[in-house]
Amino acid sequence: MKYCSECGQTVSKKIPEGEDRLRYVCTSCDTIHYQNPRIIVGTLPVYGEQVLLCRRAIEPRKGFWTLPAGFMENGETTLEGAVRESWEEARANLGNENLYRLFDLPYINQVYMFYRADLADLNFSAGPESLDVALFDEADIPWDEIAFPVVADTLREFFEDRKQGVYPVRVSNTEPVWHKEKS
Amino acid sequence: MKYCSECGQTVSKKIPEGEDRLRYVCTSCDTIHYQNPRIIVGTLPVYGEQVLLCRRAIEPRKGFWTLPAGFMENGETTLEGAVRESWEEARANLGNENLYRLFDLPYINQVYMFYRADLADLNFSAGPESLDVALFDEADIPWDEIAFPVVADTLREFFEDRKQGVYPVRVSNTEPVWHKEKS
Ligand SMILES: [Zn+2]
Ligand SMILES: [Zn+2]
Repeated sequence: MKYCSECGQTVSKKIPEGEDRLRYVCTSCDTIHYQNPRIIVGTLPVYGEQVLLCRRAIEPRKGFWTLPAGFMENGETTLEGAVRESWEEARANLGNENLYRLFDLPYINQVYMFYRADLADLNFSAGPESLDVALFDEADIPWDEIAFPVVADTLREFFEDRKQGVYPVRVSNTEPVWHKEKS
Repeated sequence: MKYCSECGQTVSKKIPEGEDRLRYVCTSCDTIHYQNPRIIVGTLPVYGEQVLLCRRAIEPRKGFWTLPAGFMENGETTLEGAVRESWEEARANLGNENLYRLFDLPYINQVYMFYRADLADLNFSAGPESLDVALFDEADIPWDEIAFPVVADTLREFFEDRKQGVYPVRVSNTEPVWHKEKS
């Protein structure tokens, strides 16, 4: 941020009166420009024994497999956003959604939320941001071609939880398991 | 938003190529300025049979009682933010935090998250944004002086869940219960 979005003059970083951290503050109109983490919402679509993954048509991680997810928009709920992204990326018709996994990614100012959902039918297809959409059995998950650690973690935990048939809402504030296994 | 934060020229609302909704786009450098929901993080501090509430020293709802909560900052986790806000508003020392309640408030572009937590000691006190901080038994909750519906809902659900001693993570995408009861 270089200019004030309210008046177009320059901003500088300073600690506003009564606060304790650096903010972008307008040098002309004194507007404080707060910057906050963004929410990424997605789903884990389940069809019988299989889960749905999308192969990314865009960077980052083009060509790698992911769960449908994207930035939450103003005016929608977390679930509405998750369902919208699943439609946009995979034309997936979902039902019976339940919050399953929250990831804190403070180093990139993001919070991820995945809802588990039932895939209602097989009428899925690749949206504009996907090269391919497919169902996978656990044994066939392309672990070395998963786009993001949060996706690998969510899948691993889901397959573990499925053994018991119990899906607690999981929150991690720590390094994802997948990072440790790879290092 | 009236001006581009990257170049200082004017922005206009239009639908960028390949997208399907109106965005603020710079008339000069073509930067798309996305706007996304903000996260508010807080805690429900519990001390034996009692819960901690803060009386607000600032608008909105000055003088009303609330749970400690505030905007999540870049560079922190949801839990870190919740604990920070509890310190700032109530000088509360917490432990054993567990995600408890997520509220979608799409009409104001906010997502609220409350962690249940144990209040570790009685060394709490009012921070700069609070007039008072106090512990309340369920019977003494000032229901008519609660600042926000999300706070009343979280308290009501907590007292209900406490009867069973089981605290599932709750998510609502619908109108809070408190709204309906009041209407
Ligand atoms: Zn300004
Ligand atoms: Zn510009």
